[in-house]
Amino acid sequence: MSSKERIYNFSAGPSMLPLPVLEQAAAEMTNYRGSGMSVMEMSHRSKVYIDIFDETKADLKRLLKVPDSHEILFMQGGASLQFSAVPLNLIGKTGKADYAITGNFSDLAMKEAEKYGEINIPCTSADKNHTYIPSQDDIKLSSDASYFHYCANNTIYGTEWKYVPETGGIPLVCDMSSNILTKPVDVAKYGVIYAGAQKNMAPAGVAVVIVDKALAGKELQYTPKLLSYQVMIDSDSMYNTPACYTIYVLGLVLKWLDTQGGVEGMEKIKTEKAKILYDVLDDSKMFSGCATKEARSDMNVTFRSTSEELDDEFVKEATIAGFDNLKGHRVAGGMRASIYNAMPMEGVLALADFMRDFEAKKG
Amino acid sequence: MSSKERIYNFSAGPSMLPLPVLEQAAAEMTNYRGSGMSVMEMSHRSKVYIDIFDETKADLKRLLKVPDSHEILFMQGGASLQFSAVPLNLIGKTGKADYAITGNFSDLAMKEAEKYGEINIPCTSADKNHTYIPSQDDIKLSSDASYFHYCANNTIYGTEWKYVPETGGIPLVCDMSSNILTKPVDVAKYGVIYAGAQKNMAPAGVAVVIVDKALAGKELQYTPKLLSYQVMIDSDSMYNTPACYTIYVLGLVLKWLDTQGGVEGMEKIKTEKAKILYDVLDDSKMFSGCATKEARSDMNVTFRSTSEELDDEFVKEATIAGFDNLKGHRVAGGMRASIYNAMPMEGVLALADFMRDFEAKKG
Repeated sequence: MSSKERIYNFSAGPSMLPLPVLEQAAAEMTNYRGSGMSVMEMSHRSKVYIDIFDETKADLKRLLKVPDSHEILFMQGGASLQFSAVPLNLIGKTGKADYAITGNFSDLAMKEAEKYGEINIPCTSADKNHTYIPSQDDIKLSSDASYFHYCANNTIYGTEWKYVPETGGIPLVCDMSSNILTKPVDVAKYGVIYAGAQKNMAPAGVAVVIVDKALAGKELQYTPKLLSYQVMIDSDSMYNTPACYTIYVLGLVLKWLDTQGGVEGMEKIKTEKAKILYDVLDDSKMFSGCATKEARSDMNVTFRSTSEELDDEFVKEATIAGFDNLKGHRVAGGMRASIYNAMPMEGVLALADFMRDFEAKKG
Repeated sequence: MSSKERIYNFSAGPSMLPLPVLEQAAAEMTNYRGSGMSVMEMSHRSKVYIDIFDETKADLKRLLKVPDSHEILFMQGGASLQFSAVPLNLIGKTGKADYAITGNFSDLAMKEAEKYGEINIPCTSADKNHTYIPSQDDIKLSSDASYFHYCANNTIYGTEWKYVPETGGIPLVCDMSSNILTKPVDVAKYGVIYAGAQKNMAPAGVAVVIVDKALAGKELQYTPKLLSYQVMIDSDSMYNTPACYTIYVLGLVLKWLDTQGGVEGMEKIKTEKAKILYDVLDDSKMFSGCATKEARSDMNVTFRSTSEELDDEFVKEATIAGFDNLKGHRVAGGMRASIYNAMPMEGVLALADFMRDFEAKKG
């Protein structure tokens, strides 16, 4: 299998994985390192699997510099099930929480939380169709929120928080599904960080949850057992069988991340990749970015041409040329190039060339 | 990779997968059938993935003859999260439910349900350490239960229900995690069937849930959105990103099942495999089965020797000989040979020979 036969997949998620990871997973599929079995077939209580699990967790702890005050959990149900788990575990303190609304997923998280308590919206970018990120001055905190929730990167609208909100001691809860492991994070600042795996980490099926242990153990009484952070902490994410194989692939991705210089290396690479595409937009008379410059996401580059017809033509021709999944989300329209960690620099450079050529041809 | 290098893995779950399935997954890993990407990397909304998803669902519907009154859902969190989902969705009707207790998992399911309503225990095998299955006459039904829950096969104790309980119109809910797809099932008799994938279907990370659509839509108000059967029915299990790759492997397993004659073929094979091991036990002076003959599971053969020391010796020597994970569950002791669909006949025959040889040597 040559990498040449593979296409550049700009999907917003699930999305590309590093080719060496896929190749290693394939090579180890029927017999993992002499164990005589596939990782898919291993008892989650076996030594061979526990070693995989522990190493993955240790690598994540090292790469994100997770302090000992926090526990790393591997849960199922993606970020969407965390929309329920977060209020179920945390809102009991005061019965209230703050939700910053900067896009589709923060809105869904807020709506789910409304089942469990009283929600205040300290800031929203809905007035300008989520094309910007509110500034610290825009944030109207409640005095008695159990926590403050925000989504660090908005895949649909292509915006990203460039600062960590200051909440005056109210625990920060952050959905980092689309930008975890793309830059260093000061984990100690957060009560809970959660992220679905299928953008920067692994195939779909695992949510990584990093919890300040001091916040756990206070869940609402009707919390499903598997959604209790305390239960997951006490069982080291093995109250029941975890998504073993997905966690193994995550482990392979983390080893690959080390070859890229860890999250510090990744930050340089992702900044460079995003700049290449944003430079095309800024130099173009045909294409323009959807988000304000200050809020531009390094993960999801959203843009449009001069008409919907031309957008359609662009997506169609790009697909034929081997650039897949460039159509924007239906609620935002236009185009979107998702360039997570595993999108190679060559893919971004090739897309930039394709965009310039398209403009020269049609402009 | 030769199959010779693989060992016989008698784990209770996760457990063996058919070698052809693993080989196909490996071959398709970096480029699924000319798509230019791995199934792990596909957008769950893309045509190429939807085709995989739809075919898997259609194959499951065909193999289990699922009637149109029922919907097949692919959920995350395993059977254990269904311990919460079942009462959250169904107990609201009367606030009460019946839970038959025949082992560890039915007990855990019952304890979780107690959070959400009043639980009656219509029958239990706890009086004899779960070595038998209560008869129909033993069942003391409530008149006003919202549903009757039981676990079709008890992996720890090695017992299996050989009949479908008669409940006089109260919806049957069954945990079939350890014997789904091993024999035909009259799905129409059930309100809900659920099963974690990691024994007979796929790697861990998916629960198959088959729901009578007439029972959905009545969940308790604080039900997490992703646990609502109605939400999952309405979104065809794609309210959020499902465990795409695990569902793909399930699809490969279903194609393999067709080569074995479907569930009818599997029933013949599993009956034969179980008989081989139970015949060894019945002929032995050293080994004896843990379950009563009438209740013996065709999936998990539990047995012990004449002493704990000899049990340990047996497990140790078996492991060296390439028979892995034969140690019984800690609460039951002794040995357990789990022989799910993917355990080949040769593995069972080889274990039977090993047991006879062990007895001849040590007896």
